[in-house]
Amino acid sequence: MKFTKMQGCGNDYIYVNCFEETVENPQEVSKVVSDRHFGIGSDGLILIQPSDVADFRMSMYNADGSESQMCGNGVRCIAKYVYDNGMTDKKRISLETKAGIKYLDVFTEEGKVKRVSVDMGSPITMPSQIPIRMDKDIVIDEAVQVMGNEYRITGVSMGNPHCVVFVEDTEKIDIERIGPAFEYHALFPERINTEFIQIIDRKTIRMRVWERGTGETLACGTGACASVVACALNELTEDEVTVKLLGGELFIQYDREAEKVIMTGPAEVICTGEIEIEKSK
Amino acid sequence: MKFTKMQGCGNDYIYVNCFEETVENPQEVSKVVSDRHFGIGSDGLILIQPSDVADFRMSMYNADGSESQMCGNGVRCIAKYVYDNGMTDKKRISLETKAGIKYLDVFTEEGKVKRVSVDMGSPITMPSQIPIRMDKDIVIDEAVQVMGNEYRITGVSMGNPHCVVFVEDTEKIDIERIGPAFEYHALFPERINTEFIQIIDRKTIRMRVWERGTGETLACGTGACASVVACALNELTEDEVTVKLLGGELFIQYDREAEKVIMTGPAEVICTGEIEIEKSK
Repeated sequence: MKFTKMQGCGNDYIYVNCFEETVENPQEVSKVVSDRHFGIGSDGLILIQPSDVADFRMSMYNADGSESQMCGNGVRCIAKYVYDNGMTDKKRISLETKAGIKYLDVFTEEGKVKRVSVDMGSPITMPSQIPIRMDKDIVIDEAVQVMGNEYRITGVSMGNPHCVVFVEDTEKIDIERIGPAFEYHALFPERINTEFIQIIDRKTIRMRVWERGTGETLACGTGACASVVACALNELTEDEVTVKLLGGELFIQYDREAEKVIMTGPAEVICTGEIEIEKSK
Repeated sequence: MKFTKMQGCGNDYIYVNCFEETVENPQEVSKVVSDRHFGIGSDGLILIQPSDVADFRMSMYNADGSESQMCGNGVRCIAKYVYDNGMTDKKRISLETKAGIKYLDVFTEEGKVKRVSVDMGSPITMPSQIPIRMDKDIVIDEAVQVMGNEYRITGVSMGNPHCVVFVEDTEKIDIERIGPAFEYHALFPERINTEFIQIIDRKTIRMRVWERGTGETLACGTGACASVVACALNELTEDEVTVKLLGGELFIQYDREAEKVIMTGPAEVICTGEIEIEKSK
């Protein structure tokens, strides 16, 4: 099976062109290829397929074999793959995903895609829909006790729940202790992803993220979007902000009138290769 | 740069055939290719090169770019690489390493190498040479206090220091707590690798290992050798033992008369590929 390993802000997937390859059992294949020591090593497997309703279709599997709906960092790499490999010459590409059709805008340098914009949809702020157990219309700068300290949180869902916390210095956060304390706090019936945000200036923030079920990660696209919405709601930044993550930078535009968030970021090829998949898989 | 990712018991390296490729700055290249998210992902880089004194020469770099002397799991994969790719038809291959010339015996199935034996050299049991701070001629079944409990240790060096501890059940060890307590114990001036060994029968043991500076790993070739020497010294097993590790199985033969240890284990190709390395690296 031919593959390409690509990454966006450190989110790395194995991409397979299913116009040329057939993947019989993608759940099993994702486990095999994603294993960091016995496989190629990745966060999961992404299949690029023909679509009846869009330019392309993607199927995405996590490293544990479970199917995933959508990953902002992952879909950017699909756009780079199909454009750079001449599978389309469109600069606006439609992509069928389990979370609906996504539109990707590619930005090229010397004929190759460098950055891609993705419409990440609408932020949700109603506590019951995030969900956060708080008897309010919206959760902005609310005081919460976590491990004996008071934090002020802002709640935003981008399809998944986020709790945004502003801090003086993201490097000084003991995220391995405080992250789980937020994740399992009684306020969050479905647990929570927590973003720790340091305001650098009106157009720049630094972010570290604790993802529920995973721990600290190099980047979280929906977390970056939720954080910029939270910054805007707290009037700490403008509506267009560069987010500095451990894995790279994302540029987030919060369009309040259209009620949507656009994320722009890098997409890079790491390597191409070939792996033998046993017939049974 | 063309590469092959291979693994032996979960020790995974990127192998480059330097009969065909030139690697200008291997320290930097090792860091780039080894990164699990931004690179291919591996424990390090191994270059297969011509030798003036042996059939082949290897240079080996860790994921942090530092040069490494020798890795039992790594050299097995070199034997598979050169034999399977027709670079030699010898079944006993000599390999120049920073730790001297190693002899590798290949065992094939359907013309491909499945298992490889490596002479891992002589065990050292003198405490001052391991080193262990204990006023004895040899450290066999000595009582040691660690975190308030008594453990009985046996000390063996295979070029690097090992402390072997026998336990009832390796699965019940809280290795993340007890491993560092051994590693930094006052008895070990250069810290220590600790093997927790469960005796299954006279020919089979189960092992988990805490490697100094690294933590728990899937396999440790020198640790498996040290453990079988320790089992033999304590008369718990015969001198030829299968060691079940998290990453696979190794067969260890302790030849007391020749004072050497032979390790036999698997070597597997994961994938082949190509990665673009920037000129500056």
